[in-house]
Amino acid sequence: MTDVEDLGRRARAASRVLATAPTGLKDAALLAAADLLLERSDRIRAANDADLDTARADGMGEGPLDRLRLTDARLAGMAAGLRQVAALPDPVGEVLDGSVRPNGLQLTRVRVPLGVVAIIYENRPNVTSDAAGLCLKSGNAALLRGSSTALRSNVEVAAVLRDALTANDLPADAVILVEDTSYETAAAVMGLTDYVDCLIPRGGPALVRSVRENARVPVVIDGDGNCHVYVDASADLDAAERIVVNAKTQRPSVCNAAESLVVHEAVAAAFVPRITGVLSGLGVTLVGDERAQALAPAIGPATDEDFGREFLDLEISVAVVPDLDAAIDHVNRFGTGHTEAILTSDLAAARRFTREVDAAAVIVNASTRFTDGEMFGLGAEIGISTQKLHARGPMGLRELTTYKYVVWGEGQVRT
Amino acid sequence: MTDVEDLGRRARAASRVLATAPTGLKDAALLAAADLLLERSDRIRAANDADLDTARADGMGEGPLDRLRLTDARLAGMAAGLRQVAALPDPVGEVLDGSVRPNGLQLTRVRVPLGVVAIIYENRPNVTSDAAGLCLKSGNAALLRGSSTALRSNVEVAAVLRDALTANDLPADAVILVEDTSYETAAAVMGLTDYVDCLIPRGGPALVRSVRENARVPVVIDGDGNCHVYVDASADLDAAERIVVNAKTQRPSVCNAAESLVVHEAVAAAFVPRITGVLSGLGVTLVGDERAQALAPAIGPATDEDFGREFLDLEISVAVVPDLDAAIDHVNRFGTGHTEAILTSDLAAARRFTREVDAAAVIVNASTRFTDGEMFGLGAEIGISTQKLHARGPMGLRELTTYKYVVWGEGQVRT
Repeated sequence: MTDVEDLGRRARAASRVLATAPTGLKDAALLAAADLLLERSDRIRAANDADLDTARADGMGEGPLDRLRLTDARLAGMAAGLRQVAALPDPVGEVLDGSVRPNGLQLTRVRVPLGVVAIIYENRPNVTSDAAGLCLKSGNAALLRGSSTALRSNVEVAAVLRDALTANDLPADAVILVEDTSYETAAAVMGLTDYVDCLIPRGGPALVRSVRENARVPVVIDGDGNCHVYVDASADLDAAERIVVNAKTQRPSVCNAAESLVVHEAVAAAFVPRITGVLSGLGVTLVGDERAQALAPAIGPATDEDFGREFLDLEISVAVVPDLDAAIDHVNRFGTGHTEAILTSDLAAARRFTREVDAAAVIVNASTRFTDGEMFGLGAEIGISTQKLHARGPMGLRELTTYKYVVWGEGQVRT
Repeated sequence: MTDVEDLGRRARAASRVLATAPTGLKDAALLAAADLLLERSDRIRAANDADLDTARADGMGEGPLDRLRLTDARLAGMAAGLRQVAALPDPVGEVLDGSVRPNGLQLTRVRVPLGVVAIIYENRPNVTSDAAGLCLKSGNAALLRGSSTALRSNVEVAAVLRDALTANDLPADAVILVEDTSYETAAAVMGLTDYVDCLIPRGGPALVRSVRENARVPVVIDGDGNCHVYVDASADLDAAERIVVNAKTQRPSVCNAAESLVVHEAVAAAFVPRITGVLSGLGVTLVGDERAQALAPAIGPATDEDFGREFLDLEISVAVVPDLDAAIDHVNRFGTGHTEAILTSDLAAARRFTREVDAAAVIVNASTRFTDGEMFGLGAEIGISTQKLHARGPMGLRELTTYKYVVWGEGQVRT
């Protein structure tokens, strides 16, 4: 097995340099990497073709194959992503707050990089440059452990970033790809408590579960999105139809797509049959509780498991509730802390829902699909946190930092 | 074994109520608990006496016995602590920032409680009220797992808090003590991924190691403080003597006491013999590298292990370094990310040290002993984080919160 401990040590050493690297150098490296990605597109695509051939021979399905594929357009997108990150403001050095203590000590709390950020990810080789770019800009070393299926692609993309760092007098080890893709190396990364300041898993439920079970380093979980849309008694039903259709069908495979519709009984008779017709027409399968089923025969029966499921597909669960309290309870019970929406014209209902629903994002009168780094104005994101520790919701450059207290004295001692 | 899962479920339910409880109610409960602690002091001290008797019979040493002991003065201190927390501003509801997106969506990022905060702690029964008080004020439910040695004391103190909650129409389950102190319950708390949003271990290295190894819930580590004082070439040596003596001897058993002295070679011949004499006179044992030993015969030999050790006692390691770079390298190599101080009159050295040393607090020209919640103006603290994720350094009310995005729309869908 690769000496992952040694890779951690090298990443840590590089992170010390990167932590105080001037913004200009980091940006120059990002722009150089963007150029190199395009210059080397033939080589990268050849490596990717080899990955695709192996995956196809191993029987990979068309969905995963598509995520593995690097077209010229996707390489251009990755390059554009790096340029976009270069154009974002550098979060490092921001003074968060400060004070003078009664004894004259002057405190400032200053934003600094986390240090070494590890990413364990699956299949998609674009994560290699997206994640490394965000880490680089925020002054962090990136320790990347991709999947075996994308290894040849990842090696080429990581080489682009390392060469761009070297060309700009920054340590190549600020981006390290763990090229041994055995399970043991992933487990080793999860245990690098001396070297990894934050581990972000990017992948399916099995990966997230494995990280939750095995990681001893600090983790930010990018978890499921069992997102609800609650149609309140006072909702504008035309707007509700547009929003539910958008939240469910605009891109059903992503974590901020709606997976469950909750309807107040006062509008259920009017809305449930109507939305069932529209969604069915768009190819959506509906399952629901007894009250929903009674209102629209196209709705099949739903179990508690269905209400807890992230379908990631053209399927949605439907519940009819007697009041706002029941709606909030339902959402808090089955939600995964990602994004929850209320559609209402009632101010009091909107205020209660936003206060009492426990999720990274609570949205009033708009689609759940808006919860991401770009839509929230973060510029780019490394993931969407569904835990509460450290960061919640879309994680951009700011969420890849921590702070330190810098204290200025003139000989103070404690009495 | 106690059904810890059920305790977690109850804590989660209580946390939903506490999350939106008005500040006035939370403060009233805190003040009521302070009063009750004093009213019931006889009962609490009787329980504590029973704990002390058992512990003494089991051969507990004088140090741990002292930490276990609840005197009237200590109960008064605990009550004063609860009153102090009641007087602090409520962090919940603060708007951190906000923006209007190009599509008209209005975003605000609002401070909210973490939810359920679990504390696993050792011996000291005062942690029961200190931790519960901070959790209550910040809107979190507290799930407390103390040690078997303090069980009878903890039961009484937890009852005070639960009764004070009930008396103020808040759910008693906002403070739950796990009364089964078998190892299995601690392990179960570490695995309550559905119910615990943050686990903070308060105790020695063995507890911290166990939490790091076994926890699957998000953790904030309150770890070792191997704190350094670096005496630079341009340091005022009179001030340096005062600061080193204070940092080492004012309270050697705490995590922000200095454990290592690093001296620039330009002042080593003047400072090392001088500080060795003063510290030896105060009963401090010194170990050091060869250059330090050569300057003061009282300094014994130090291994790398000594440089990495948190003595928590009247002992200190001494290293002589050729320059600032070597000092920073030494501190970053052996430090634990707690508190590091530089004593210097050289602005450039101070700026480099504060930028390049990787620690929760970097202090210029003052004692390391200042890193705590009270000294930093947080009012009170639940611990001092030595990790970078979520919070760094002293953790007060603010550090017991997270945020949610609240998004106001008027029918927006994603295109």
